[in-house]
Amino acid sequence: MKFNKKLENIKIYEAGKPIELVVREFGIEPKDIVKLASNENPYGCAPKVKEAVTKIVSNMALYPDDSMRKLKNGLTSRFEIKEENLIIGSGSDQVIEFIMHAKANANSKILINSVTFAMYEIYAKHIGAKIVRTASQEHNLNEFYELYKSEKPDVIFLCTPNNPTGDAIDALDMMNFIAKIDENTLVVVDGAYMEYAAFKDKKKAISPKELIKKFSNVIYLGTFSKAYGLGGMRVGYGISSPEIIKELHKLRPPFNITTLSLEAASVAVEEQAFVNNCISLCFSEMKHYEEFATKQKIDIIESYTNFVTLCLNKDNNSTQIADALLRQGIIVRDLSGYGMNAIRVTVGTPEQNSRFFELTAELL
Amino acid sequence: MKFNKKLENIKIYEAGKPIELVVREFGIEPKDIVKLASNENPYGCAPKVKEAVTKIVSNMALYPDDSMRKLKNGLTSRFEIKEENLIIGSGSDQVIEFIMHAKANANSKILINSVTFAMYEIYAKHIGAKIVRTASQEHNLNEFYELYKSEKPDVIFLCTPNNPTGDAIDALDMMNFIAKIDENTLVVVDGAYMEYAAFKDKKKAISPKELIKKFSNVIYLGTFSKAYGLGGMRVGYGISSPEIIKELHKLRPPFNITTLSLEAASVAVEEQAFVNNCISLCFSEMKHYEEFATKQKIDIIESYTNFVTLCLNKDNNSTQIADALLRQGIIVRDLSGYGMNAIRVTVGTPEQNSRFFELTAELL
Repeated sequence: MKFNKKLENIKIYEAGKPIELVVREFGIEPKDIVKLASNENPYGCAPKVKEAVTKIVSNMALYPDDSMRKLKNGLTSRFEIKEENLIIGSGSDQVIEFIMHAKANANSKILINSVTFAMYEIYAKHIGAKIVRTASQEHNLNEFYELYKSEKPDVIFLCTPNNPTGDAIDALDMMNFIAKIDENTLVVVDGAYMEYAAFKDKKKAISPKELIKKFSNVIYLGTFSKAYGLGGMRVGYGISSPEIIKELHKLRPPFNITTLSLEAASVAVEEQAFVNNCISLCFSEMKHYEEFATKQKIDIIESYTNFVTLCLNKDNNSTQIADALLRQGIIVRDLSGYGMNAIRVTVGTPEQNSRFFELTAELL
Repeated sequence: MKFNKKLENIKIYEAGKPIELVVREFGIEPKDIVKLASNENPYGCAPKVKEAVTKIVSNMALYPDDSMRKLKNGLTSRFEIKEENLIIGSGSDQVIEFIMHAKANANSKILINSVTFAMYEIYAKHIGAKIVRTASQEHNLNEFYELYKSEKPDVIFLCTPNNPTGDAIDALDMMNFIAKIDENTLVVVDGAYMEYAAFKDKKKAISPKELIKKFSNVIYLGTFSKAYGLGGMRVGYGISSPEIIKELHKLRPPFNITTLSLEAASVAVEEQAFVNNCISLCFSEMKHYEEFATKQKIDIIESYTNFVTLCLNKDNNSTQIADALLRQGIIVRDLSGYGMNAIRVTVGTPEQNSRFFELTAELL
């Protein structure tokens, strides 16, 4: 059977190893596994979220409230925006998918950072659009501007803080950059880890409200998968001008968020104190990673997220290190696929981090 | 800002009214609302499903097992197929979306029944493909074949039992029809309500195993949203040849099913006794709808699903009847949007059905 030609260039995506898979492959007990590969909140979600979801388990038979009233109310009040500025996706991933299908096509170029979130390229391939990358590992807005002028992309993705490197763009620099972009080019500001950056350094804090007040061609992406501890529930959102949100809504499949996910996110958005506490614990623990890197004489990229990127020396191969850790039940992300001899490690609980330091020290 | 031209033809989808919305609009208490609009299982899901989900509520922070091992094992054993024959979607809707993006494009034609599931047309519009419809309200396979020959569609959708009419195609007729279709045309057999049809009449039972054994150009769709009582959890699946499944997997976003949804569906697929009992109760109750229709002298389409379609007389307007019921807390689906003066009513619990009969009798 013949399929659309664009499929020829798509490889099937393989996600980070889930705990279940490691258990199966190496016969390791679930309790002995330390998963530091997917930047989940090691403290989970707020207790009130669990209570609320448990309470409505009987509603699993009922289709979700597709108006998403409760969640939208929570988000509009948190960000001081209107409902017409908001779209909810099955993870912010799905909002990226809407953006790609609404704004780009097989003749489009999509400008992204040299090393960045893999889904931009994956969704670009779904429509056969061409990816253009900057040269530098960290976001260099001068490079972005030069490529914007020469390549005329339809969409520009700025991931701040960036995944999988952890660095972040200064809010002021970003504002100055976007001001130079024409109104018909869509700038996507992916703030999946923004809660961490904003906590650590006010200069890195991007306010979606301010963004959309200043620019009509920008969409901000956020998620409940990281700081809010709901990685398993697939809830993200986009904040933009009513014009853009309206077009994206045309591509939103009805009932794209489950009944339990809607409830979980609706309650989670109210639990800011819990989230802030988790973020604070994360940065306290991150210091130990910095100490570990110094002691082991390996480079660590300054991180504005809940993960650290350890750039290994020539003597060590990131794929081998990640594999060796996996066999002992510690799951981290090997970044060789991004052209880096590095591993990305989620900052876990003190116990999880100690276990990582101990085993990794033996391997280096 | 300019968007892709195909968006101009897309209207934003409005789903059936959820309970929450009715409560808000008319100030009716949730306990007094009877929702018979979305063909949910009124008995919910099996108790073991609720127990299993409650037990893993703490796992909401963890990304789903993207290999979906447990659920795939359950489905491959239930349908006696291999994993290479199976793809899981966020509802069978999402598998329809994959099909459309993999097989069709702006030059494609998509052949569907005159009156059928709305999502086929919606996803066709997402890619700008043209919809071709048969003339008859029920699936007439001769009409399908004539249009197949003259219009040369890339994809044909057969919805059996059909939504929103409830009629079903004989399995033998379908097999004979598909045998006449060339190998490069994809035939989609949407069996969202198949569990009901197979229970009521063996002649209507389509076996996915047999389908894919005979044909390489067919995909069967199933869902957990109806008989399995998991409408809120968004889990559906496609069963087809390894060649087709491989291409569709290229378009599957990672983590498209939530952690709790995976668990719910994995347990639900083992609870066949519960499901069969619900289906049996549904058809016992359906008799009362048939009696009601006879008594009220209105037509009822013979249904192989968990809903009935009541075709009103000229004296009554389906929109007005549905609205009047809504104001009293009974939610049904008005089919005027499908060009029918009819309402679609989910067969509920005995109490829910009695309430419907009582109030509707007053309105007719």
